[in-house]
Amino acid sequence: MAGASAEDVKVLGLSLSPFVTRVRIALRLKRVEYELVEVRFLEPKSEILVKSNPVYKKIPVLLHRGKPICESAVIVQYIDEEWSDGGRSSSILPADPFDRAIARFWVVYMDDNLPALIKALRPEKEAAKVTELAGQFRQVLGQMEETFAECGKGNGFFGGDAVGYLDIALGAYLGWIRALEKDKSVKLLDSEELPRLAEWAERFLAEESVKGLMPEADEYPKLYATAVASQ
Amino acid sequence: MAGASAEDVKVLGLSLSPFVTRVRIALRLKRVEYELVEVRFLEPKSEILVKSNPVYKKIPVLLHRGKPICESAVIVQYIDEEWSDGGRSSSILPADPFDRAIARFWVVYMDDNLPALIKALRPEKEAAKVTELAGQFRQVLGQMEETFAECGKGNGFFGGDAVGYLDIALGAYLGWIRALEKDKSVKLLDSEELPRLAEWAERFLAEESVKGLMPEADEYPKLYATAVASQ
Repeated sequence: MAGASAEDVKVLGLSLSPFVTRVRIALRLKRVEYELVEVRFLEPKSEILVKSNPVYKKIPVLLHRGKPICESAVIVQYIDEEWSDGGRSSSILPADPFDRAIARFWVVYMDDNLPALIKALRPEKEAAKVTELAGQFRQVLGQMEETFAECGKGNGFFGGDAVGYLDIALGAYLGWIRALEKDKSVKLLDSEELPRLAEWAERFLAEESVKGLMPEADEYPKLYATAVASQ
Repeated sequence: MAGASAEDVKVLGLSLSPFVTRVRIALRLKRVEYELVEVRFLEPKSEILVKSNPVYKKIPVLLHRGKPICESAVIVQYIDEEWSDGGRSSSILPADPFDRAIARFWVVYMDDNLPALIKALRPEKEAAKVTELAGQFRQVLGQMEETFAECGKGNGFFGGDAVGYLDIALGAYLGWIRALEKDKSVKLLDSEELPRLAEWAERFLAEESVKGLMPEADEYPKLYATAVASQ
């Protein structure tokens, strides 16, 4: 994906960010070529990041013909609306307004909960605290297991028979979920406790639009350390 | 607006909530009749609220033909998409995908900042702390003054020549902004410091879709005390 395509699409980000992964999956679903521009996201921030996202200075940023769009949920909706001609792919968001609202609600719910849990769990060393945080994590995923039954309507994905907005949003966390399970020796997405969600995760990770975008579980600690050290 | 219309639309909420106000403005813009159902939002929660929004138990909830939708930004987008037939009104969100993304981004920005500042400022009695919080509040509004120049494109509203998504989102905070200015004797939306935003606020509050939906500035302390006391 080196070089800008005719569309001139760039993604500012790093592969270890679930929010960057969301944007990359959405672009693949729409068959949009792009360049991934790796940026410093801790101090000192990259100049291109500060210029493109002066308010938050956070990744990801999507640059389309030089115009920046920020916040992963906003970017994924932009990608869905901007590249909406039928030939590319089906819609990322559901067609029905009620289904769209439900998908948007659950993305807000996950983003209100999972990033804080990942942030707390990653450096935690105390066994009792790890167990407590893992329990909270499983509660959030348990809610998504219930939601899957309602939204997925018996199909393979939250979006029905194809990967959609909610699949992308939750699925992009799977890299960190697997990494934390390995690093902390805990179960977060437990196939006995959450059988439908565990099966969904396998299906999601096997999708062509997803393969290769998330690092392997054991790569996360090193990638994180490198990203922080190189700042 | 008493009684359910043919559409069977209910809003669970209280007039002092800016998030409820957003939903009510959006419904007026679309000329949708609805019933406002006042609910307990602190403990003990109303049964209808717990049933309709079991995850957050927060207002507003939109009930459309009995199906609940939660989170004000999600609800306003639902209203825009569900009642999209041309005769009712123009779109609430901009038509262009990039303009939509920018509007969505700024709504996230405001909601990341203003509710916490309102919550901190409301009970604050210490003068130095009030001054500090008011300064932070003016910074957020200063960012919106700049955004207005970019999004409004010289027209009267963020959405162009009519009230749109970003107007509704920011405008619904005006009740609390005026209430806090009066109660704390501070300037938040200062017409000398933020002349364009101050003019925009006057225009917004004079709109037919907005009139009468927000309590007067001096009503807020009493309404808040009543809402809390009656829980």
